[in-house]
Amino acid sequence: MFEFTVNATSGPARAGTLTLPHGMVETPVFMPVGTQGTVRALSPNDLRSVGATLVLANTYHLHVRPGEQVVEKLGALHRFMAWDRPLLTDSGGFQVFSLEGFRRVDEGGVEFQSHVDGSRRTLTPERATEIQWVLGADIAMAFDHVVPGGADEATARDAMDRTLRWLERCRKRHAELTASHDATTPSRPDRPGDPERRGVVASSNQTLWPILQGGTHLELRSEGLRRILEFGPWTGLAIGGLSVGEPKAVMYDMLERLEPRLPTLPRYLMGVGFPEDLVAAVERGVDLFDCVAPTRNGRNGSAFTPDGPVNMRNAEHRDDPEPLDASCDCETCTTFSRGYLRHLFMAEELLGLRLLSLHNVRYLIRLAGEMRAAIRRNAFGPWAGEWRRRYLHSGSA
Amino acid sequence: MFEFTVNATSGPARAGTLTLPHGMVETPVFMPVGTQGTVRALSPNDLRSVGATLVLANTYHLHVRPGEQVVEKLGALHRFMAWDRPLLTDSGGFQVFSLEGFRRVDEGGVEFQSHVDGSRRTLTPERATEIQWVLGADIAMAFDHVVPGGADEATARDAMDRTLRWLERCRKRHAELTASHDATTPSRPDRPGDPERRGVVASSNQTLWPILQGGTHLELRSEGLRRILEFGPWTGLAIGGLSVGEPKAVMYDMLERLEPRLPTLPRYLMGVGFPEDLVAAVERGVDLFDCVAPTRNGRNGSAFTPDGPVNMRNAEHRDDPEPLDASCDCETCTTFSRGYLRHLFMAEELLGLRLLSLHNVRYLIRLAGEMRAAIRRNAFGPWAGEWRRRYLHSGSA
Repeated sequence: MFEFTVNATSGPARAGTLTLPHGMVETPVFMPVGTQGTVRALSPNDLRSVGATLVLANTYHLHVRPGEQVVEKLGALHRFMAWDRPLLTDSGGFQVFSLEGFRRVDEGGVEFQSHVDGSRRTLTPERATEIQWVLGADIAMAFDHVVPGGADEATARDAMDRTLRWLERCRKRHAELTASHDATTPSRPDRPGDPERRGVVASSNQTLWPILQGGTHLELRSEGLRRILEFGPWTGLAIGGLSVGEPKAVMYDMLERLEPRLPTLPRYLMGVGFPEDLVAAVERGVDLFDCVAPTRNGRNGSAFTPDGPVNMRNAEHRDDPEPLDASCDCETCTTFSRGYLRHLFMAEELLGLRLLSLHNVRYLIRLAGEMRAAIRRNAFGPWAGEWRRRYLHSGSA
Repeated sequence: MFEFTVNATSGPARAGTLTLPHGMVETPVFMPVGTQGTVRALSPNDLRSVGATLVLANTYHLHVRPGEQVVEKLGALHRFMAWDRPLLTDSGGFQVFSLEGFRRVDEGGVEFQSHVDGSRRTLTPERATEIQWVLGADIAMAFDHVVPGGADEATARDAMDRTLRWLERCRKRHAELTASHDATTPSRPDRPGDPERRGVVASSNQTLWPILQGGTHLELRSEGLRRILEFGPWTGLAIGGLSVGEPKAVMYDMLERLEPRLPTLPRYLMGVGFPEDLVAAVERGVDLFDCVAPTRNGRNGSAFTPDGPVNMRNAEHRDDPEPLDASCDCETCTTFSRGYLRHLFMAEELLGLRLLSLHNVRYLIRLAGEMRAAIRRNAFGPWAGEWRRRYLHSGSA
């Protein structure tokens, strides 16, 4: 359980297999985001139909509504949202630092205001870990202190140091929960414990991944990475605090400089991204991604295609009988014309939100699949060049 | 084509089979409403999964947006909305008489204001027929003058007389379109023309149904019915102008008094209805229904169940692991808990709108199926008694 195998490389780009309690995940992989325990406008059947394997849900949102006790009573997160494949929960760190309203940070944790009812609540590393344990995703994330993309070095260092101290507390609490669970659960005879993996924070149910912070400061990131790995072993590593306002070139440069220092562990770049970001990050050795872009943009009428983004509201689609993306195998593209999709958006019909969300998620999942194939034939560079020539051709991306 | 066979009766209640160009329809049948060429929040696959056979779309709405020429360029209505089973289009009469804004009626037709862009437009019996011909549904409806449920006899007579004069014009235009089409389309050798059906306004593509008006005045309705049948033969008959504000008892009484005078033709009660209305109307000899209630109520969080309507927002569902309706085979009821459905509504998630719409449509389609079964065993009365005891038990229906 929680094994990661790299099957092929093409420069820093890797194709791998991540084994989780609820199934195997081929990387590079795009995770659709189900913030409130549902990927907006899509059903579990929709997600299966587009080939989603790993789905993300959010600890902050599920804590404030409906509350983790409700999710627990309804059979934990997998049963709650009827998703029987792997799940990952973000820790809530990003949310409490990015949502509007009151917030007070101290060494203990963060006091904040619920966006649902305005009530004061507190998340600590221990609470975030306990909530995620109750939710029961395959992968839990450590509770982190996120700073804006332009934060100065002192601010970024302060947040990174705190994130590392919090990581120690998350790890301790997760190990306690795991030990208590494993003590009451008979080990499965078909999965004998591997003595070499002792110390890995993982039971047969859930593993905990650390988050590397440090803003746009390479020295901080390098130090943070070293200290995280000293705490190890880990089963994966997330890179947080990028794609939060800094220029894209800064993010790409940071990934490029970090890559040679990263261990083989699966690398998850949080909150990324758009198609061009996925390609650039895989090129720099990243394996996992999540982003609301495919569903949010889909609801706004914007669709990813191999020739760049398309705005379905444009008058040019009015009586176009062609599919949105002739190369795509999703229900939207194999069933409906561009003219009909435009009609749904002009008429403000709910089906339009769903059909474009479905296509955009499928687009990113297929993109990840194409990248895996290019890596396996050790041709990622030429593939990426071709892909960019076509995708960025319109100049609108 | 356009055959209707009554297979069983139980008192005035009938079970029949209606043969249409795009397939067979077992009656009694509930038609989901796809006003703008989409049943709100549901996809064609969803509709197939709940057993929908005949779907309604609206001439007024498709005329003002995207325009029938656009639908024609995109392959006509079936291809446009990707529905390969039977379709029926309402004529737009009901809409131009019920939507807000400017309206001027004269013998020629109705001038009105588009609710989309405020432009002045005119629908005449001929235009409504031509638009529906272009849309290409299996069943087109005659253009009618609808009056409110409480209209006095003089107002109702005026509208009924006009509707009958307009029916003559719809029929003439539809016959011209049919003749012109049939002259250019070789007859199919496997479907030789039936000389006894000459005069029926139907090609192999589309038939036209008249709409009986007359408000709540039985004498007017009887006269209207007599005059419509004199114009015949027809392949079906709609009863319009009910369920438009009059007390339900008045509607039920009208149906009961009309029933002995109705020919065998399929009888379509327009705009009805709620579960209890379907049962009451089938009991009085009605075969076809359409209503936005299942989708509109579903979007409002209200679900039909055998024990009456349920409001999914109620706090009692908060951590209820049971399905919405344990007897239902729809995706919603076989996949999700009441607690999760409540969460979707409290969190304003789009999936909730869809899951309740899906269930409500399935509920009415299953209800129609149960009624067919009860009729076939000549036990409609006892079945309806049992059904009412359970459905109306809570008193909330």
